[in-house]
Amino acid sequence: MAAKKPLRIGMIGYGFMGRTHSNAYSQVNHFFDLEYKPVLKAVCARNAEKVQAFADQWGYESIETDWKKMIARDDIDAIDICTPNNIHKEIAIAAAKAGKMILCEKPLAMNTAEGEEMCAAVEKAGVANIVWYNYRRVPAVTMAKQLIERGLLGKIFHYRAQFLQDWTINADVPQGGAATWRLDAEAAGSGVTGDLLAHCIDTAIWLNGKIDSVSAMTETFVKERTHALTGQKQAVSIDDAAAVMGRFSNGSLALFESTRYARGHKALYTFEINGENASIAWDLHDLHRLKFYDYRDEGPLRGWKSIHVSDGDHPYMKSWWVPGLQIGYEHTFIHQVADFLKGLETGTPVGPTFRDSLETQKVCDAILASAKDGTWKHI
Amino acid sequence: MAAKKPLRIGMIGYGFMGRTHSNAYSQVNHFFDLEYKPVLKAVCARNAEKVQAFADQWGYESIETDWKKMIARDDIDAIDICTPNNIHKEIAIAAAKAGKMILCEKPLAMNTAEGEEMCAAVEKAGVANIVWYNYRRVPAVTMAKQLIERGLLGKIFHYRAQFLQDWTINADVPQGGAATWRLDAEAAGSGVTGDLLAHCIDTAIWLNGKIDSVSAMTETFVKERTHALTGQKQAVSIDDAAAVMGRFSNGSLALFESTRYARGHKALYTFEINGENASIAWDLHDLHRLKFYDYRDEGPLRGWKSIHVSDGDHPYMKSWWVPGLQIGYEHTFIHQVADFLKGLETGTPVGPTFRDSLETQKVCDAILASAKDGTWKHI
Amino acid sequence: MAAKKPLRIGMIGYGFMGRTHSNAYSQVNHFFDLEYKPVLKAVCARNAEKVQAFADQWGYESIETDWKKMIARDDIDAIDICTPNNIHKEIAIAAAKAGKMILCEKPLAMNTAEGEEMCAAVEKAGVANIVWYNYRRVPAVTMAKQLIERGLLGKIFHYRAQFLQDWTINADVPQGGAATWRLDAEAAGSGVTGDLLAHCIDTAIWLNGKIDSVSAMTETFVKERTHALTGQKQAVSIDDAAAVMGRFSNGSLALFESTRYARGHKALYTFEINGENASIAWDLHDLHRLKFYDYRDEGPLRGWKSIHVSDGDHPYMKSWWVPGLQIGYEHTFIHQVADFLKGLETGTPVGPTFRDSLETQKVCDAILASAKDGTWKHI
Amino acid sequence: MAAKKPLRIGMIGYGFMGRTHSNAYSQVNHFFDLEYKPVLKAVCARNAEKVQAFADQWGYESIETDWKKMIARDDIDAIDICTPNNIHKEIAIAAAKAGKMILCEKPLAMNTAEGEEMCAAVEKAGVANIVWYNYRRVPAVTMAKQLIERGLLGKIFHYRAQFLQDWTINADVPQGGAATWRLDAEAAGSGVTGDLLAHCIDTAIWLNGKIDSVSAMTETFVKERTHALTGQKQAVSIDDAAAVMGRFSNGSLALFESTRYARGHKALYTFEINGENASIAWDLHDLHRLKFYDYRDEGPLRGWKSIHVSDGDHPYMKSWWVPGLQIGYEHTFIHQVADFLKGLETGTPVGPTFRDSLETQKVCDAILASAKDGTWKHI
Repeated sequence: MAAKKPLRIGMIGYGFMGRTHSNAYSQVNHFFDLEYKPVLKAVCARNAEKVQAFADQWGYESIETDWKKMIARDDIDAIDICTPNNIHKEIAIAAAKAGKMILCEKPLAMNTAEGEEMCAAVEKAGVANIVWYNYRRVPAVTMAKQLIERGLLGKIFHYRAQFLQDWTINADVPQGGAATWRLDAEAAGSGVTGDLLAHCIDTAIWLNGKIDSVSAMTETFVKERTHALTGQKQAVSIDDAAAVMGRFSNGSLALFESTRYARGHKALYTFEINGENASIAWDLHDLHRLKFYDYRDEGPLRGWKSIHVSDGDHPYMKSWWVPGLQIGYEHTFIHQVADFLKGLETGTPVGPTFRDSLETQKVCDAILASAKDGTWKHI
Repeated sequence: MAAKKPLRIGMIGYGFMGRTHSNAYSQVNHFFDLEYKPVLKAVCARNAEKVQAFADQWGYESIETDWKKMIARDDIDAIDICTPNNIHKEIAIAAAKAGKMILCEKPLAMNTAEGEEMCAAVEKAGVANIVWYNYRRVPAVTMAKQLIERGLLGKIFHYRAQFLQDWTINADVPQGGAATWRLDAEAAGSGVTGDLLAHCIDTAIWLNGKIDSVSAMTETFVKERTHALTGQKQAVSIDDAAAVMGRFSNGSLALFESTRYARGHKALYTFEINGENASIAWDLHDLHRLKFYDYRDEGPLRGWKSIHVSDGDHPYMKSWWVPGLQIGYEHTFIHQVADFLKGLETGTPVGPTFRDSLETQKVCDAILASAKDGTWKHI
Repeated sequence: MAAKKPLRIGMIGYGFMGRTHSNAYSQVNHFFDLEYKPVLKAVCARNAEKVQAFADQWGYESIETDWKKMIARDDIDAIDICTPNNIHKEIAIAAAKAGKMILCEKPLAMNTAEGEEMCAAVEKAGVANIVWYNYRRVPAVTMAKQLIERGLLGKIFHYRAQFLQDWTINADVPQGGAATWRLDAEAAGSGVTGDLLAHCIDTAIWLNGKIDSVSAMTETFVKERTHALTGQKQAVSIDDAAAVMGRFSNGSLALFESTRYARGHKALYTFEINGENASIAWDLHDLHRLKFYDYRDEGPLRGWKSIHVSDGDHPYMKSWWVPGLQIGYEHTFIHQVADFLKGLETGTPVGPTFRDSLETQKVCDAILASAKDGTWKHI
Repeated sequence: MAAKKPLRIGMIGYGFMGRTHSNAYSQVNHFFDLEYKPVLKAVCARNAEKVQAFADQWGYESIETDWKKMIARDDIDAIDICTPNNIHKEIAIAAAKAGKMILCEKPLAMNTAEGEEMCAAVEKAGVANIVWYNYRRVPAVTMAKQLIERGLLGKIFHYRAQFLQDWTINADVPQGGAATWRLDAEAAGSGVTGDLLAHCIDTAIWLNGKIDSVSAMTETFVKERTHALTGQKQAVSIDDAAAVMGRFSNGSLALFESTRYARGHKALYTFEINGENASIAWDLHDLHRLKFYDYRDEGPLRGWKSIHVSDGDHPYMKSWWVPGLQIGYEHTFIHQVADFLKGLETGTPVGPTFRDSLETQKVCDAILASAKDGTWKHI
């Protein structure tokens, strides 16, 4: 076996996403045959003790407590950004200037303006860049993409998606701080729109093309929460729920919804696409299944098929186990790293790049603007 | 057994809905213990031969070919309207003036203005009146109503519903005429909004209260069809698909969709209601099941329950078979007749009355208006 | 419309099955185009008051309290037997001698010996005869038959079926009497074997051919119950649960199970058939769906399809509503009457005849014998 | 963080199971907080080149080509056996004599006699030992165990399980050799009985206690296959399918089935347990869900619940992601290693030990014996 080319990772942030990314770097070469091999060079966060514990657990060789120092290091090839959204821009621009590749958590930025700057920076620097919209790489979702590209659906009429959670119904959940910064617009930019709906939008654009216009409503059900750090009651600044009607460039209609107030749904990301000849549906709670309806089947035998996406001829699955044995959530990140490394190997960048993700940012901004004034927005 | 009081029915129209109503009248006393018994006195339509065949099949005692004559008959207590929508108003007002009870197919009218006149007429005449929004009386749907009334859901956050079909995707389907008048705005008033969405709205108002405001989009995918009678190509005047965002008076958010372009769905009427403490979901393709999630269950045992609504302690079901044996679509009409007759017996009218259904009409009109100009409409 | 030929029915017994049969006779001409029309001539039971109430509810023209008198009547063409099993034989033989057609509830008889006599009697008399194994005529089950006959499954490897209930878990349920004679071997012949497993066997033979041999176990979980009429505790004489291994003539393996102790299952009759090229599955709790897996589908698109059997090109369904609108349990009896009447019309008898059902009886007897001595039995 | 205690692993064999075990050793400390940390010391197989490639991919420090040398090494604490079944015994006994801990793939042995020797050896040596019946540690399965232990099900009436595959239907699949030794009785001991049914039996005994007696049938559908190495046609020596009736010591009835001829099922391991008060069901194709029916629920609200086993208060799940995000197949092996290491830490051995697995072996042997002579066997 030829020696692998190292890709030396410096990760900034070490929360939930820090774990999913670290796992992806650790696992990718066990299952995918690649020239490159990630090396866990350094992880950075302000609390030295905690970040050292994280480094020990995952095998990072070193730690930093100042991200600027990490970006300045010569022994790092790629910066992985998994901080809160409000510092994505600053880090990304600095990393690009330092010539580092960048793997950035989603959403790309706090808003379109920030995203534009970030795109300009990575494109000027000519560095490889990708955003962790991981759900594209659920095998069943990638398979949906393949079926659409083969033209099996025909003309598309409808695209609907939702991302439903229920973890903030309790008014005692605090906002802000390390664990709940997603409930603080200062850190997150928006609520469910940037956190959940952004996934729906990214997948939708990938599968069904450009979104031209949207009309939206948002709601904040719990008006006041305690801040996790200060203990003070303060107004809730984020959107708890968002609903969106829209139109794609290809003439199909969009309907999106996300909320953290859908009792009984933990992380129910679903989409369904209705085409002239066939339809596709998927949901994250059973992510290893793709539902497929084909009008070309013999009449009386038409029905929705539940495809257990676990065979060697399904996307990514020949790298895993045998038919019938399912994979889970974290594998989507492993697939993203595998594709990113393959992109380096072949010289063909893989998405979603910063530029791809800017489009999602624009749609999210239009949604928030429409929800404010109640009018349709052109993207 | 005491002799039953007859309720002498005169039905106008004998299409698909004529069959469901006739069946309901035939079956109701076999399964429900009631003072009244419908008598199939007369059925009316313009084609004497066809209406006679229908009368023979269902056991109507006589036929008419002019609905005014039927309304004028002394031996008829109740007029059942199952004509195309564009003559509901005229018939209903005449029937009310003649002192007949009225059982009218949905939607109530072509628009709110017509509906107002119809309400005024039946209320002035003081005649019993009901509209055939039959899905309220699917046992699982009635059970949803009971659970909500018991307060099991707590504060409601979300109500979403859809009614998806796929039978008009083929551009060769004609419009107009006896079989496809629903594709002709002249006869139907609107497309999926009045035909399908109206069901969603009726159930939503019944279960979750008043809808205050809506914003909507509609689309006509196939722009031109052949008229079934003239054979001429003509512009399609109806909405093929409609999507709606809205707000209920109780503060919850609404999301509705209906279409005849959702490949793979034959008549998929679904709703889901998310409350603070529990959620409910249902769909017409498995109408005998209610899905229920209760947050008050012990933590690790929480999950969506699929309740097979076929027990004696489920709504309407003690009249049918034994647990595990399901009923189907036509039973919803039988239940409506049973309740209507019970209402006569007890003197307590049952809904949806014309007045109840006028509210649905207003929402449908607001939807069509919003889809035209892209702004929110207050109901 | 030509006048219908009457088929004058005399029904003996009026319990649960009396209702399903009466409904079938009432409904069949509303939905099926047939030369014959059942006439509800008389219903017979020992309690005159109760049977009169039943006759009033269903529209029987007269009552009898002695079944021999009913058989002797000239104005009756067909005898419907829905008494407890222990008097099937006597009635059937008398009816055959009187030249009446016979529609007999299942199981045919108390045992094979009785069944042989009954077959001999109807065959000697040359009267039309049929047994109410109604589940053959669930549209999805009939469709399974069609798919097998078309050869879509190829060589069959496995047939498994179960009929699971839970209504006798409570030891306080009595046995014997009108409501619970099925728990009394004197009246029923056996427990779940004749009541539930017999359905599995009838369908299995119909779909997959002769069963050659079986090995079985049975169990009686509750050893003693109170008799419904005497109030006395007595030993339970029936089998509460039965499991069966077997071999079909075509080389496939059988696995059957039935029980009334499967908590959570009300009437879960299921079967699954695995063939070389395709598999089929069905269950009674969602009787309007057929599950179908076809190995000839393109590899990555293989999966179990859930076919909503409600289209005009599905068996029996063009007589009902429109695609997506499901029918229920009682329709299976209507279909059986429709087919029986069509058989009279065409002169081609339809099954399951007494002779067909005798085969099921033999398998049931072999099961009970095997369960007693623990050895394999050849049929 | 305190330094971890190393557990130096020497693995023999490197096929499919070699990958699942290696992955478990690599991942366990990333997700579980344990004193011990596996060290991948050596992997052994006859082909030096291939085993070196495997070692490189997974990070084993060294290789061996003679398992006896590996057992003789001082720097190895535990031997992991993932060879074909026919050399389990020899290796295990040698490893025990050398004082090594043993983690042995299932089934334990070729037969009960071998298993007895192996148990004697590890017990005499006093070495930690465990068998990789990994499905016990699917979180949903472990949760089933907890619910049973809490007494939620009450008296158990029925336990049924099946393990259905379809990968050997094609008669061109060869037998023997590295990839298909499971089709060769010389290497595997039996066919589906030891490979698939053994999982059903292990779980059944764990969840429901001792199996007292069984009656079984087996079948070999394809009678002749080509040997993978010799290219010669030879008789098929294994069982392709097995069905089993049985009785547990607690009075409940068992029904088991396994086959590789169930078209449409890739690895459908299912079980269902019916108790007096509640029932549980699970299947491997959606392994992250547990189905639960509780008779103590309020009557009309009873139904089967689908529990998405992905919350922090579900077994093993607090170590993984957040609610709604599912894990997959390989995690069961990680859980087994985590428990094994915790057992070393606490001094309380965890099962299934060799002795536990011997019980499964006895049942499998009884099944094969019963299938031969058609009589019931006492275990």
